[in-house]
Amino acid sequence: MNYCSHCGSARLVLKVPAGDCLPRYVCEDCHTIYYQNPKIVTGCIPEWEDKILLCKRAIEPRYGLWTLPAGFMENKETLEQAAKRETWEEAKANVNQLSLYTVFSLPHISQVYIMFRASLGDLTFAPGYESLEVQLFTQDEIPWENLAFPVIHRTLTYYFQDRAKGEFSLHLEQIVPA
Amino acid sequence: MNYCSHCGSARLVLKVPAGDCLPRYVCEDCHTIYYQNPKIVTGCIPEWEDKILLCKRAIEPRYGLWTLPAGFMENKETLEQAAKRETWEEAKANVNQLSLYTVFSLPHISQVYIMFRASLGDLTFAPGYESLEVQLFTQDEIPWENLAFPVIHRTLTYYFQDRAKGEFSLHLEQIVPA
Repeated sequence: MNYCSHCGSARLVLKVPAGDCLPRYVCEDCHTIYYQNPKIVTGCIPEWEDKILLCKRAIEPRYGLWTLPAGFMENKETLEQAAKRETWEEAKANVNQLSLYTVFSLPHISQVYIMFRASLGDLTFAPGYESLEVQLFTQDEIPWENLAFPVIHRTLTYYFQDRAKGEFSLHLEQIVPA
Repeated sequence: MNYCSHCGSARLVLKVPAGDCLPRYVCEDCHTIYYQNPKIVTGCIPEWEDKILLCKRAIEPRYGLWTLPAGFMENKETLEQAAKRETWEEAKANVNQLSLYTVFSLPHISQVYIMFRASLGDLTFAPGYESLEVQLFTQDEIPWENLAFPVIHRTLTYYFQDRAKGEFSLHLEQIVPA
């Protein structure tokens, strides 16, 4: 951040505003304070019989690796709307019966991942703009060595553990780099 | 947003970037794209015997009304760290045994409220910088007519309903203005 986006001043300083505890960018001219906060990534584990739907990424980071359909929640939407929208955008799949499954804090990248289990409405799916391929996988077929992110690995590990136990429970935890 | 915070240009336009679905502020000079995403508000329902701890707000909005200790999650922290920090900042109270209780989308203000039930470690509490008073309330004493926000009203309503049933379950829903 080099310039105040409100008044255009270059007199931005990093300082702790009065009554605050953390340094923020503050404009010395118009006194605007800039807060930076974690972003929510949300998406689905789309289920069809004993399979789940994964997307092969067509974008960086992790081009060519497999992931669950998920992305940044947008302003003015609910978590479920965002998860369904991302599933549509990346996999051209319609899901329903969303059930909250994971709430993972990733403090090193200031993200919170909130993932839902969801039912695929039918077998209509196709790569969206950010995907090279979209494919259903049984547990044995999951490309464990070619998953895009540790958080996806963790999510799928819990998923198949829970499924084997016959009971899905909410997972709340912190994911840190290995 | 009037100026590009990267290069200082005033040539910001609101447009849908290639491959995107929503309009963003884009700098016509340096091509930086500005994304705006929902913020997470997190905090606690601090429990002590049959009472819970509320804070009377010393800041706008809703100066002088009662609320649960909660605030914006910061970069580089986990949800639990943020909820404990806010409880400390606003009520000078230490809580432990956090249990995820609500995940509420507030799309009209682009916020997601994530609240935890938590145990007060002891009876040490006091108003922080953003509070006028901090006080324990039994169910009968809750100032229902003087709660700061609808989301707090909803949270406390569920809390006492669940407590009466003897079982607390996670609540996931959307809160819209009345």
